[in-house]
Amino acid sequence: MKKVVTFGEIMLRLASKDYLRFVQSEEFEATYGGAEANVAISLANYGIDSLYVSKLPNHEIGQAALNSLRKYGVDTSYVLRGGDRLGIYYLEKGASQRPSKVIYDRKDSSFALSKEEDFNFDKIFKDCSWFHITGITPALSDEVAKITLNAVKKAKKLGLTVSLDLNYRQKLWSKEKANSVLTEICKYVDICIANEEDAADVFNIKAEKSDINSGSLSSEGYKEVCKKLKEKFNFKSVCITLRESVSANDNNWSAILLSGDEFYFSDRYSLRIVDRVGGGDSFTAGFIAATLKGYQNQDIINLAVAASALKHSILGDFNLVSWEEVEKLANGNKSGRIQR
Amino acid sequence: MKKVVTFGEIMLRLASKDYLRFVQSEEFEATYGGAEANVAISLANYGIDSLYVSKLPNHEIGQAALNSLRKYGVDTSYVLRGGDRLGIYYLEKGASQRPSKVIYDRKDSSFALSKEEDFNFDKIFKDCSWFHITGITPALSDEVAKITLNAVKKAKKLGLTVSLDLNYRQKLWSKEKANSVLTEICKYVDICIANEEDAADVFNIKAEKSDINSGSLSSEGYKEVCKKLKEKFNFKSVCITLRESVSANDNNWSAILLSGDEFYFSDRYSLRIVDRVGGGDSFTAGFIAATLKGYQNQDIINLAVAASALKHSILGDFNLVSWEEVEKLANGNKSGRIQR
Amino acid sequence: MKKVVTFGEIMLRLASKDYLRFVQSEEFEATYGGAEANVAISLANYGIDSLYVSKLPNHEIGQAALNSLRKYGVDTSYVLRGGDRLGIYYLEKGASQRPSKVIYDRKDSSFALSKEEDFNFDKIFKDCSWFHITGITPALSDEVAKITLNAVKKAKKLGLTVSLDLNYRQKLWSKEKANSVLTEICKYVDICIANEEDAADVFNIKAEKSDINSGSLSSEGYKEVCKKLKEKFNFKSVCITLRESVSANDNNWSAILLSGDEFYFSDRYSLRIVDRVGGGDSFTAGFIAATLKGYQNQDIINLAVAASALKHSILGDFNLVSWEEVEKLANGNKSGRIQR
Amino acid sequence: MKKVVTFGEIMLRLASKDYLRFVQSEEFEATYGGAEANVAISLANYGIDSLYVSKLPNHEIGQAALNSLRKYGVDTSYVLRGGDRLGIYYLEKGASQRPSKVIYDRKDSSFALSKEEDFNFDKIFKDCSWFHITGITPALSDEVAKITLNAVKKAKKLGLTVSLDLNYRQKLWSKEKANSVLTEICKYVDICIANEEDAADVFNIKAEKSDINSGSLSSEGYKEVCKKLKEKFNFKSVCITLRESVSANDNNWSAILLSGDEFYFSDRYSLRIVDRVGGGDSFTAGFIAATLKGYQNQDIINLAVAASALKHSILGDFNLVSWEEVEKLANGNKSGRIQR
Amino acid sequence: MKKVVTFGEIMLRLASKDYLRFVQSEEFEATYGGAEANVAISLANYGIDSLYVSKLPNHEIGQAALNSLRKYGVDTSYVLRGGDRLGIYYLEKGASQRPSKVIYDRKDSSFALSKEEDFNFDKIFKDCSWFHITGITPALSDEVAKITLNAVKKAKKLGLTVSLDLNYRQKLWSKEKANSVLTEICKYVDICIANEEDAADVFNIKAEKSDINSGSLSSEGYKEVCKKLKEKFNFKSVCITLRESVSANDNNWSAILLSGDEFYFSDRYSLRIVDRVGGGDSFTAGFIAATLKGYQNQDIINLAVAASALKHSILGDFNLVSWEEVEKLANGNKSGRIQR
Amino acid sequence: MKKVVTFGEIMLRLASKDYLRFVQSEEFEATYGGAEANVAISLANYGIDSLYVSKLPNHEIGQAALNSLRKYGVDTSYVLRGGDRLGIYYLEKGASQRPSKVIYDRKDSSFALSKEEDFNFDKIFKDCSWFHITGITPALSDEVAKITLNAVKKAKKLGLTVSLDLNYRQKLWSKEKANSVLTEICKYVDICIANEEDAADVFNIKAEKSDINSGSLSSEGYKEVCKKLKEKFNFKSVCITLRESVSANDNNWSAILLSGDEFYFSDRYSLRIVDRVGGGDSFTAGFIAATLKGYQNQDIINLAVAASALKHSILGDFNLVSWEEVEKLANGNKSGRIQR
Repeated sequence: MKKVVTFGEIMLRLASKDYLRFVQSEEFEATYGGAEANVAISLANYGIDSLYVSKLPNHEIGQAALNSLRKYGVDTSYVLRGGDRLGIYYLEKGASQRPSKVIYDRKDSSFALSKEEDFNFDKIFKDCSWFHITGITPALSDEVAKITLNAVKKAKKLGLTVSLDLNYRQKLWSKEKANSVLTEICKYVDICIANEEDAADVFNIKAEKSDINSGSLSSEGYKEVCKKLKEKFNFKSVCITLRESVSANDNNWSAILLSGDEFYFSDRYSLRIVDRVGGGDSFTAGFIAATLKGYQNQDIINLAVAASALKHSILGDFNLVSWEEVEKLANGNKSGRIQR
Repeated sequence: MKKVVTFGEIMLRLASKDYLRFVQSEEFEATYGGAEANVAISLANYGIDSLYVSKLPNHEIGQAALNSLRKYGVDTSYVLRGGDRLGIYYLEKGASQRPSKVIYDRKDSSFALSKEEDFNFDKIFKDCSWFHITGITPALSDEVAKITLNAVKKAKKLGLTVSLDLNYRQKLWSKEKANSVLTEICKYVDICIANEEDAADVFNIKAEKSDINSGSLSSEGYKEVCKKLKEKFNFKSVCITLRESVSANDNNWSAILLSGDEFYFSDRYSLRIVDRVGGGDSFTAGFIAATLKGYQNQDIINLAVAASALKHSILGDFNLVSWEEVEKLANGNKSGRIQR
Repeated sequence: MKKVVTFGEIMLRLASKDYLRFVQSEEFEATYGGAEANVAISLANYGIDSLYVSKLPNHEIGQAALNSLRKYGVDTSYVLRGGDRLGIYYLEKGASQRPSKVIYDRKDSSFALSKEEDFNFDKIFKDCSWFHITGITPALSDEVAKITLNAVKKAKKLGLTVSLDLNYRQKLWSKEKANSVLTEICKYVDICIANEEDAADVFNIKAEKSDINSGSLSSEGYKEVCKKLKEKFNFKSVCITLRESVSANDNNWSAILLSGDEFYFSDRYSLRIVDRVGGGDSFTAGFIAATLKGYQNQDIINLAVAASALKHSILGDFNLVSWEEVEKLANGNKSGRIQR
Repeated sequence: MKKVVTFGEIMLRLASKDYLRFVQSEEFEATYGGAEANVAISLANYGIDSLYVSKLPNHEIGQAALNSLRKYGVDTSYVLRGGDRLGIYYLEKGASQRPSKVIYDRKDSSFALSKEEDFNFDKIFKDCSWFHITGITPALSDEVAKITLNAVKKAKKLGLTVSLDLNYRQKLWSKEKANSVLTEICKYVDICIANEEDAADVFNIKAEKSDINSGSLSSEGYKEVCKKLKEKFNFKSVCITLRESVSANDNNWSAILLSGDEFYFSDRYSLRIVDRVGGGDSFTAGFIAATLKGYQNQDIINLAVAASALKHSILGDFNLVSWEEVEKLANGNKSGRIQR
Repeated sequence: MKKVVTFGEIMLRLASKDYLRFVQSEEFEATYGGAEANVAISLANYGIDSLYVSKLPNHEIGQAALNSLRKYGVDTSYVLRGGDRLGIYYLEKGASQRPSKVIYDRKDSSFALSKEEDFNFDKIFKDCSWFHITGITPALSDEVAKITLNAVKKAKKLGLTVSLDLNYRQKLWSKEKANSVLTEICKYVDICIANEEDAADVFNIKAEKSDINSGSLSSEGYKEVCKKLKEKFNFKSVCITLRESVSANDNNWSAILLSGDEFYFSDRYSLRIVDRVGGGDSFTAGFIAATLKGYQNQDIINLAVAASALKHSILGDFNLVSWEEVEKLANGNKSGRIQR
Repeated sequence: MKKVVTFGEIMLRLASKDYLRFVQSEEFEATYGGAEANVAISLANYGIDSLYVSKLPNHEIGQAALNSLRKYGVDTSYVLRGGDRLGIYYLEKGASQRPSKVIYDRKDSSFALSKEEDFNFDKIFKDCSWFHITGITPALSDEVAKITLNAVKKAKKLGLTVSLDLNYRQKLWSKEKANSVLTEICKYVDICIANEEDAADVFNIKAEKSDINSGSLSSEGYKEVCKKLKEKFNFKSVCITLRESVSANDNNWSAILLSGDEFYFSDRYSLRIVDRVGGGDSFTAGFIAATLKGYQNQDIINLAVAASALKHSILGDFNLVSWEEVEKLANGNKSGRIQR
């Protein structure tokens, strides 16, 4: 099977233990994560050949990030080594009415300062059938935005399926900048993925009657968003994940897919959250895997949501589940009954 | 007071911490457990004299298993030492829609390879009034099945009350084998205990209108199961625990008792699960303790369910609660309000 | 801004980890707490100048208690050193139907044995505008009760606002003793704070139609309690916090304020509990802070409840949140949605 | 075999982890220990029937102390339950030039406040051949001193061997008080055990030319101490352990035995210390066990020192080694070479 | 560069934390290791392409073992999945005079029960230049012994360098069986590696004047052992590692190489041990790496010993050091001075 | 007493646990440290009023750094809040021949980017008698170098004692740059402190016959260094600490003081290292404290070395010892004998 290639930044994730606040923490869990790396690892776990492209500093912390990818079987042949620092994000897990909190310290990372000549996408795309990026990558620096645009163009030209998760991050760039850069990139994108806020943030396409803090979202409103997104860029498909946040511990989780003119609504899960970071990325990987494995649209959206429902029960950015587990859940056993 | 004697295997339980998946675990919690040992320890905690009979390897890991029984006051005079290995089970705790997972590595344990001459039940049963086993013990080897059958016969002859928890484990034996062995044993059993699946698995007696994965069970259906079980073997009483699995974190928990011709329905608890392993065993021990302490049927089933409701809030296989705590809950304070 | 001064005992809190029972615990989390210290630290975190008065033994465990106050910016200039022991409380966190359990070992602590001459309240009250105590302080010893009464009189005379949280602890004194001592103190109190049980315990003023273990409280009943309390002592205001205990994991949380003749009802929160100890203290601190910051009554009660709702998501006695976080929650975002 | 009975106090031991200072500790290891309990558990581990007599509060922390004895097979039938508190000692482990530090908080414990009528030594001494106490027990209160003296008298009368470890603790009593109380007790003692400081502290019998802080002790000087002790009270034997403290991590360890008129010098061990608390108690237990097992004097002192050398490599107060391990070391393999 | 291929069993290693005894352990560190896997991972860390051949059960614990190899960049394409169990070894780390202890529970593992048809060595040896095994592999079962012998023959025929570490384990087979099987295998071996005990155990070739428990070994005696080993099987080279065990914490470490007729003695290191398991394997890997990188004999033995000296400072079986670190130590900086 | 003021950067220190390598670490200990902060905290612990001047980002990680200073009683009134990031250093503790490793990630920290107008040294120096900096501060940026020079000038003018620890860090600046900047600063310095490498690195003043990796240093050679340093800048005193590195676990530690024309040699300690980071800073603080407390030169150097010897036994950058403990060690009790 041909490979899925992802391109982005992997960071050191320093998380308080359990529900400790930052000011209480005398130790941090040290794992690694980043939107595209999360997709790459999920894909490998789902049984898809997965190639990750990035740049890491040539010291032991960079090595540990690299090892975290190798551990789960991701092909890291195109992970460059160089530059000075690994980006960091600090994570404090919320509980009840107290929200989770992320502090970024990712400026001037090895990846953000990488140069166009660092990556030979002609060589990278050999034996690949799918190229996935998120809106975070081009937000990291103008140079990386340029690299991303050129990579997307090349991927398109070489016939790879190109998917983009909008993934808007307000601390990385303004809505205006995001709009301008992503508008250009979207021209070469086949499949657009977004969460309940992204389309409004980046393209000012808003769902009617939905207050994202209300704990309940209108799927009607989001049908409209899908449609507008699709029309604007002529995407083949648009997916939107819908997170209804009841509390920091309890979310409802579902998604909507517009493919051709048809809408597909997924199952809806009431989640008890262990770790919600990477939820969207595990959805994307589920979507890609289900597509490549040849499922039909209704199954694809159900499998993608089932995969990402499972992610919320797993500590860390990565979705450490097998495709067999995803299928079992999508096929209907949601009771969490013990398996022995 | 005369002793309750249990006979079975205690294993090393290697559990991932918190909600970590096996592949994330760089350490395992090491505790000990096994259906009959769990009953023995619960009984000791409930204030009943408890004698446990088993066989453990003569090395330090076997010693640690033995110490875990002594720590809670179980009489271990009849725990033999010998053979090569302690059985193991790996436990990964589930969350939300992700189920808990058990991997057994218990084959050829010291206990499974024990011989009839290892145990002198005439001596063991002295000063005992009750003999309890589960369906796991005879499933471990043909020799152990034989020992179990003979022990049950002897207990019956000596006038001990004999109780059996069906406890069907598909990884240990086939339904056919279980049926044939347990059918023989049941002839000498006074009280039969089962969960919502066992009667169907072992004796093909199914509850109507109940899907165990649906999160809701029909108590009517289970009345029928009790009745058929009781008639088939002429048991004095039959208890069935009813676990409604809403998610890996949330279960509803109740039980039904058929004693003589009368049905008794317990209170029903909405559980937030800390650890559900050993839930059934704590119920059994609650049932035995309440019976020996002279409660009436309705109280017995309520106390047994209250005891096991508490178990679900405690890490490890053992139910570390006092009888006073069981009574307090059964008497109605279910609010979990702080005690100071 | 002038300071708020609190006077009381800080103890070593030895808590089992996660949901472990005491008999399972091979280590205890060692933090520090006590009703008045909790208020002092919350106030400092809310941006109020906070002065804490107490007495601690002159050894390293006493030093660690002192450091825990300094760490969060509380002024400890009037924390005396001397005596032999730091009071201790053991805490076992409950889950589901199993309640949390507190074992006190605080007798004959340095603070409980402190003498009137140890504290110079004329000097202490300089630059202070508010004096807060709880019913625990005078319960510790007759001498401390005398010190407290004199301090309250002096505060009143010097024009400080005096607040009292009734905080009845049955293991420290009888209801009769509490009634007699607190009746005297209440004469000098401006603002009285209580939980859903205190008024009944101390002054035999009971809410009609409310069973505190039922998981649901009648706010009508508690209006009456407020009124009677206010009339009895001519308080300026009375606040009662209302905890509805659904299980050890789930509580509903709200409060009622009677100021002048007007009743104010707070928002009501469905809490997923991380740690409920100190919940009332964080409410009191929120009430004081909001008052000093000049909010109106309806906002004050909402802010105080929001502050204490957040406390329930934080391990330890102290409420480690900023005023900005309190405001954000009181202003309506209760979804716990991640902040990045 | 007849039992060895010990009588004393077991405390909760709250130890900083690794080499953390108290002010850094956010958690304490919670184990249990006390001189006589340590002897009792060591004896059980060495294969000697061991009966421990004490009094513990009737709450869960008291229960945990009891369980720690049961876990290792000590007979706890005569451990009373009652009173309010379990004594505590805080332990900070030293390193390099920084000494270990102990803070006691054991005043008014259940045991210290126990009454003569609590213990029926006629019943207790049935089936016992040896009674062991240390100088800590009579130091706890005048009542306990009286109980101890009477117990010693009774033991002597009943023909039990009586051993006493002087174990002087300056924070419990003055040298004068210790002298007066222990002088009376010593009249009924057969075997006196002391460390390199005790004889000087209690009886003002000093070793010449030995500075206990110099890292080197004169065995000649201690021969004299043995002789004087023996003569003063007409002991059958006197043992003195000799700790040469090079640093908090490195000690030399040996002992001297005077039995009849003969001196026996043990092997000398260079220890890398994991935990030195309980070192003396493990020596005493080794001495008792070797004596009861029928070894000759030279072997007895070598086995006792080997047992206690091993103790220094084990965390906690208890010596968790088998007699087989003690023998192996005493027989000469000191290389610490891996065993597989 | 062509690959080095190793063939053997990887086990789950369950180690007590720090210096805890097994009976104290309530958790085990869970890592993975086995002599050949340790060599494979060390080689990958030293920058050599490394291919590991084995068989692992198809469950999550097997997967975790596999991941531990991938993490460090070992090629696992020829790790089969199947069978029931992963072998286990329990490890208790010794201190001072208390030795480390290993309990094996590896019988009937997936690898031990693997069949000749499971491995296609013609395919495996493609692109490989070196084949390494240890004496453990053929000790696991007769079938695996047969596979090993055939693999060695094939390797020899295909022109690979074949190395064997004698690695005698008394719990796996008798000295007689080892002698007979390894004598056959040695015919196809180029380089033989042994520790200070192996030659005596397997081939009854003993070093004169060396007591392995004395803490001091005679290099003269071991020259003779090298010579006899070399002559017996016509090896190209023989290496013997010399461990002088002063205590469980302190060892001296050196090695001797006989290549052609020339002896080469390594530097000698005084080790403060963090973890000594895998010490020999890291030596072997250092030897192989230095040879493949083209160093001279004196450098080879110094580099191999430096590599393994570093291993003793690292927790777990694997030598997690870079070749640059090995060279730096071999080149003379043994001071452990901080690098910043 | 007037205050000692220090000026510099405090970082987040992310340390592997125990002796784990970075690539093994799934969690980091999170403490805070930096040369000047370490001095400030040591001083506060030694009982000296200590004022720390710095700049920290206005987020929770910055707050945690601030809290770590407050916890130990340092006056943080002049710690500014602003900028984006807190500098980080990763620490891997070495063992045996494996050196400790530090990776810096401190570029563009809030402090490094601070501006001259951020600090008002006229105000800061009020009530201060001593100003201490290290060579790290001016190395952070040209602007900070300028601030430092001006501060030093102002301190000198205002009559404060000015001390400088050369503290050369090759990753921050070249030797040439350090030479040029520090030469200018040294003109205003009274007391210069250096380790065994700094004078050579910064001023090319080398000790004869000393190889810093040999584990043994020549005090004669360092007398010469002191003399040359003193003459070059006309310092009042020069101190050099002498670390002899036997292994990563074992160092010898002493110092030499040249005051006027007199040399003073300290005691020499054989250290078993728990954590060597901050060793020099604790020496400096000991030197300042002893000087301010009015000791004589020989005592000063002995106390400073004793203080820093204790530091090596404590985890983290800070020296958490009291002046009483420093004096006790300096007065001669180096045996590490337990204190109870």
